[in-house]
Amino acid sequence: MADPRVHIRSIGTALPGAPIDNAGLARHFKMTASFAQWIDTYVGTSFRHFAFDLDTGKREYSLAELGAEAGSRAIANAGIEPGELDLIVMATWSPDQLIPATVNIVADRLGVNDLTTFQLQSGCTGALQALDVASQLLIAGRHRTALVIGADTCFKHFRPGLDPRRMEPGHLVNTVLFGDGAGAAVLSRDPAPGAPLLRHVSVRLTGLNRAPGQSADWFGWGDTLPDHLPIAEDYKAIEEAVPAMAVEMFHELLEELDWSVEDADYLLPPQLSGQMTERITGLLDVAGLQEISCVRETGNMGNALPFFQLELLLPRMGAGDRALGVAIESSKWIKSGFAVEMP
Amino acid sequence: MADPRVHIRSIGTALPGAPIDNAGLARHFKMTASFAQWIDTYVGTSFRHFAFDLDTGKREYSLAELGAEAGSRAIANAGIEPGELDLIVMATWSPDQLIPATVNIVADRLGVNDLTTFQLQSGCTGALQALDVASQLLIAGRHRTALVIGADTCFKHFRPGLDPRRMEPGHLVNTVLFGDGAGAAVLSRDPAPGAPLLRHVSVRLTGLNRAPGQSADWFGWGDTLPDHLPIAEDYKAIEEAVPAMAVEMFHELLEELDWSVEDADYLLPPQLSGQMTERITGLLDVAGLQEISCVRETGNMGNALPFFQLELLLPRMGAGDRALGVAIESSKWIKSGFAVEMP
Repeated sequence: MADPRVHIRSIGTALPGAPIDNAGLARHFKMTASFAQWIDTYVGTSFRHFAFDLDTGKREYSLAELGAEAGSRAIANAGIEPGELDLIVMATWSPDQLIPATVNIVADRLGVNDLTTFQLQSGCTGALQALDVASQLLIAGRHRTALVIGADTCFKHFRPGLDPRRMEPGHLVNTVLFGDGAGAAVLSRDPAPGAPLLRHVSVRLTGLNRAPGQSADWFGWGDTLPDHLPIAEDYKAIEEAVPAMAVEMFHELLEELDWSVEDADYLLPPQLSGQMTERITGLLDVAGLQEISCVRETGNMGNALPFFQLELLLPRMGAGDRALGVAIESSKWIKSGFAVEMP
Repeated sequence: MADPRVHIRSIGTALPGAPIDNAGLARHFKMTASFAQWIDTYVGTSFRHFAFDLDTGKREYSLAELGAEAGSRAIANAGIEPGELDLIVMATWSPDQLIPATVNIVADRLGVNDLTTFQLQSGCTGALQALDVASQLLIAGRHRTALVIGADTCFKHFRPGLDPRRMEPGHLVNTVLFGDGAGAAVLSRDPAPGAPLLRHVSVRLTGLNRAPGQSADWFGWGDTLPDHLPIAEDYKAIEEAVPAMAVEMFHELLEELDWSVEDADYLLPPQLSGQMTERITGLLDVAGLQEISCVRETGNMGNALPFFQLELLLPRMGAGDRALGVAIESSKWIKSGFAVEMP
């Protein structure tokens, strides 16, 4: 292989519908202004977008539509034709169907064929898993130009007519914490003017003998739908473990890259919520490290989110600048990180 | 990288419960012997195993349990300790939960930690996708020893009390066509005595502007469960397209490997059903090519099946022997193939 380096040629993102602010959420749920204030202060999210109509519960965007929209923008931003792609790797925890995998419907919408496609099933570290798989496949040498997509929607878990006063706390937090969206990046072995390098991606399961911190069930024809939301979160375990895991990953990244703390210019921290991000950056407390966050404006969009951070980061980077990103998945305790460098 | 070659160090498989023969299936459904005969002749499946009790519909094995059992056997057969693994790639279309990804529960059961895990969402080409991702990651150089798992169960789509006389034909065929199981392989950059090489894996989407030939839906808390089985198959399209795609893939594999037809000693054909496999091998009609099939004994176990074929193949291979495997996924029309060579 002539150049085993992986270049980030472009980013593309897509958000469904209009942003919903906390006052809008409070109005929809017939709650007072103090509910909106509580979300703003204690969760740290001001806006989110949903792929469904909040009032009717009707789906307005499929995951494939959002993924194709973000992918299409990334392809345009890279200045390439869709046909130049020879690999698509998509990550989601909320596919439209079990099969076909949503990535293949996205490919159809992009008009591409005769290429390799993979879809990874994962929570908040899926985007980094997809970046890892795609960049390693480029390094292995058979593929040249990859589209990486992260996308999630919570449509299938939403029921209209919910009353926050009667929700379990976990369900209530989920209703105000998450948002829907899709992000994408074109990675290539071919450099382009101003294209930063994806220097490193690391994904590591650390869940041995630890109960899942987050789980989400799906149902088939033989199942009975439960009375309660089948998404469970152990917030206490998450609040305790995630900041520590993020700090660990940050320092492990530096070690794996043989960089010192002073080498890093930007930090893309985990984006579970605005509050959690603040706790993590507070713990890291590295002087001069600029934080790139968007969760307050978008909500937690699962696998889409790191691409929104990259979209904010890349235009700011000057020659020699270095950025570190960290994502933690509390499902079975996966820590992941990546490094971007402007040559 | 010193040796970019990928060695298949071992195979492990797991089947749930006792085999159910066609007479047993007929008895369960209160059908006559001619129903059993029809399955045997027109579908070409004699036995299958289910992860659930056919009479009660109760789940007896989770996908994680089956995957861990197959994985554990592969690890033992490779003569390594679980801790030597630094990568697990699992493929399924029927995960136990959306998150945690089942691969991470499998890792827990195997007692491994601090390694990279990926789970691919796909139908009948998932096993080959997992072999592709794992072998490319080994070739890229960061990982040394990978466990690859393919596993599927149809538990969530089964309801007890079904009456074949009142089933739609598609549902009836699914009830007798599929089985549950798990398979695994240890791949390594380290050679071992008698370990064959995974010479090549190829995965290609060919679904542009073609309607899906197979689909399966999942449901969330906000959904209503449908009256009819949410698994759809276009048998006419499958019967028309799959044999032709299999023949195409076989010849493309030879071309990609720069092998002639005479170089191939063994064929591992697609295993949708015994009948379909016969049609495909009939179309190929390559003199001296030995067929390795197991679908008649196991039913179509989706992503588990290629590992059962490999388990039959490897002990038969002598020095210099070459084998080609083909799997076709009709969901969005993916063709895939792989090549194994005994040094």
